[in-house]
Amino acid sequence: MLDNDLRLVKAAQKKLALLDEEKRNECLKKISDALLKNKDVILAANQADVLTAKQNGIMASFIDRLTLNEKRIDDLSKSILELINLDGVVGNLIEKTKRPNGLVIEKIYVPFGVIAVIFEARPNVCVDIATLCLKTANACVLKGGKESINTNKVLVSIMKDAIKDIIDPNVLYLVDKTDRAITDELITKRGLIDLLIPRGSSRLINYVVSNAKIPYIETGAGVCNLYVHEKANIDMAINIAVNAKYQRPSVCNSIENLVVDEKIANDFLPKLYEKFNELNIKMLGDEKTLEIINVGVATEEDFYTEYNDYIISIKIVKDLDEAIDFINEHSTKHSEAIVTDDKIAKERFLNEIESACVYHNASTRFSDGGCFGFGAEVGISTQKLHARGPMGLKEICSYKYIIKGDGQVRWAIS
Amino acid sequence: MLDNDLRLVKAAQKKLALLDEEKRNECLKKISDALLKNKDVILAANQADVLTAKQNGIMASFIDRLTLNEKRIDDLSKSILELINLDGVVGNLIEKTKRPNGLVIEKIYVPFGVIAVIFEARPNVCVDIATLCLKTANACVLKGGKESINTNKVLVSIMKDAIKDIIDPNVLYLVDKTDRAITDELITKRGLIDLLIPRGSSRLINYVVSNAKIPYIETGAGVCNLYVHEKANIDMAINIAVNAKYQRPSVCNSIENLVVDEKIANDFLPKLYEKFNELNIKMLGDEKTLEIINVGVATEEDFYTEYNDYIISIKIVKDLDEAIDFINEHSTKHSEAIVTDDKIAKERFLNEIESACVYHNASTRFSDGGCFGFGAEVGISTQKLHARGPMGLKEICSYKYIIKGDGQVRWAIS
Repeated sequence: MLDNDLRLVKAAQKKLALLDEEKRNECLKKISDALLKNKDVILAANQADVLTAKQNGIMASFIDRLTLNEKRIDDLSKSILELINLDGVVGNLIEKTKRPNGLVIEKIYVPFGVIAVIFEARPNVCVDIATLCLKTANACVLKGGKESINTNKVLVSIMKDAIKDIIDPNVLYLVDKTDRAITDELITKRGLIDLLIPRGSSRLINYVVSNAKIPYIETGAGVCNLYVHEKANIDMAINIAVNAKYQRPSVCNSIENLVVDEKIANDFLPKLYEKFNELNIKMLGDEKTLEIINVGVATEEDFYTEYNDYIISIKIVKDLDEAIDFINEHSTKHSEAIVTDDKIAKERFLNEIESACVYHNASTRFSDGGCFGFGAEVGISTQKLHARGPMGLKEICSYKYIIKGDGQVRWAIS
Repeated sequence: MLDNDLRLVKAAQKKLALLDEEKRNECLKKISDALLKNKDVILAANQADVLTAKQNGIMASFIDRLTLNEKRIDDLSKSILELINLDGVVGNLIEKTKRPNGLVIEKIYVPFGVIAVIFEARPNVCVDIATLCLKTANACVLKGGKESINTNKVLVSIMKDAIKDIIDPNVLYLVDKTDRAITDELITKRGLIDLLIPRGSSRLINYVVSNAKIPYIETGAGVCNLYVHEKANIDMAINIAVNAKYQRPSVCNSIENLVVDEKIANDFLPKLYEKFNELNIKMLGDEKTLEIINVGVATEEDFYTEYNDYIISIKIVKDLDEAIDFINEHSTKHSEAIVTDDKIAKERFLNEIESACVYHNASTRFSDGGCFGFGAEVGISTQKLHARGPMGLKEICSYKYIIKGDGQVRWAIS
């Protein structure tokens, strides 16, 4: 059953790959319009989902992410118009070489094929992923959480209907089951799904990584660290710590750990303490921290934990070496920052920290496709294979080599 | 036990990553010299392996790949000198942007970390992989076949000894067991091995893909197709078919299937038949082929089979559409070629064939790092994630973002 459906998706993707950029943008425009035209039906479905979630006692932050309103639909529709204006990537030349034997080798971007995305609360992921995939001639298989199933069904149905006069609407496919069994099926569909992107909790991502038999990109787990070096500008360090922890603690690029050099701790920590108390941020600290400020105890486990909340774990280190070792050990290799005016410490930190994004004198909150200038974001990869850090359109494409000759053969033995 | 060893490898890689290109090249030079200086001991170990293999009745082509001789060692040593002259990739800038807020974002190549390679007969893979990894600041874990274990042990021991005054020799690690159980262990070492490259039979590669819990790159399976279009230059088509089948049938970029347009079959096949008979190439054909030339029957299974031998399966198709569908269905997405003088057929084939390398009027035998001008080759990827087609030094690297600021924080809500 699923196999048959996926075969239809694959066949539809082959047709999509033959459309030119202009036609694919036309699909996007139709979807953007259809979202506005169908606001009422989207909101009705969403309200049903929200009501059920509330009845089931789901926590408020989850319900916030689940909820659509007029403004969120307007924003979704508008973001699609911005996507239309981006360079489409597929077919673009990456490199071209002419070999001594006359062969011309072109390396060009191609779609992956069928991209499956498993996501949790936010139903707008449906629209984001569908449009990013259409833009890059990829088909997509969407599997959302059970809490947003009504909203997802309506959104995908509206999108399919919007594009059906231009392209086989099977390029968009919503898995209508939401249980773990269907996830288990999806992640083994070798040959039918070309790439899997799990978006959500680290539990989901770890499950996928341990069980998938198809190529995947890990996203999102973010135990990010800020290191305040002995030569830090203290005001800047406070400002960055506040921003990286407080602006939006629920996202993966906010910090969880504050690593402080012992030589600056007595000056820095009391000021931080005052500011964080004002903002109602809960502070936990290691033994040395407790000698300076009156906060809760941070266990070793705390330093590995992504709280996604107004909680920070503070660690005092004796020098840069200890800071680098501590961060490489505890981080999820997402984003880390150093605040320092020392050139050597800066270079060593940028070089030796093994994370996707490493900052000097700036907030980790900038690890984001938009902030990086990609114009769109598929997620943030924490793996080294294929894509690392914020992923834009290029990162959901592969490439191929086209080689043009006039009869060349190879007789040299090698 | 293995975990402890792998931890030492990982720690050694961190030190290697801090060496500059010059020091890493020094390691390569030492290895190149040591191979020449230790020829006798290498050849003695290899002769023992070859003898055992012969006693065990291993087939001749395998023994050929297993065997080292003076010339092969000289070539190995020389190829390392060529590697020294290549650009080292690691640390190179891929992109640099300055954002409106003043942040400077640099995207640079970094090593993967620890790369494990599982390989079969050829012991020179030990040296190839070790030196490619050293060049790119990667540590490597090598697991060869049981037939070459003595040669592999001697080679790795010589290399470790050669570099020990420059870098922690744990950057090179040979797994001294050669059974399936150790493969099962290796392919689940998340966090200790950053990338796995299986090189060998499709059986090995399929096993890895089905069971690995660490990132991998599939290499090498090559059911490659040559399509002779109705507008082909027949002499060119014969010449390319001979080259792609006959020059070195044991390699992955040689062709297994010949797809012939029915409108040219009556002119082309008798000429091919004569030439291939001369060369003692065994021909199998589908029903329509049998009406034209007197060859064996090709079953559906034959068209999926990589014979790595002087055998070709011939399929007659009614047009370009059928040819494209047939090839996309039966190929391993490695390398395919069309021979035609027709511009539209050429463009459609290059565009619609979903393989890593697609050729017009040239032999598939050029799918090779050397022929592509990479200067070195790690293998040929048949997957879409990360690396596709011939892999050089860049393909065994990842990247990271380094972001330099002067206190930037992000307050805009998004």
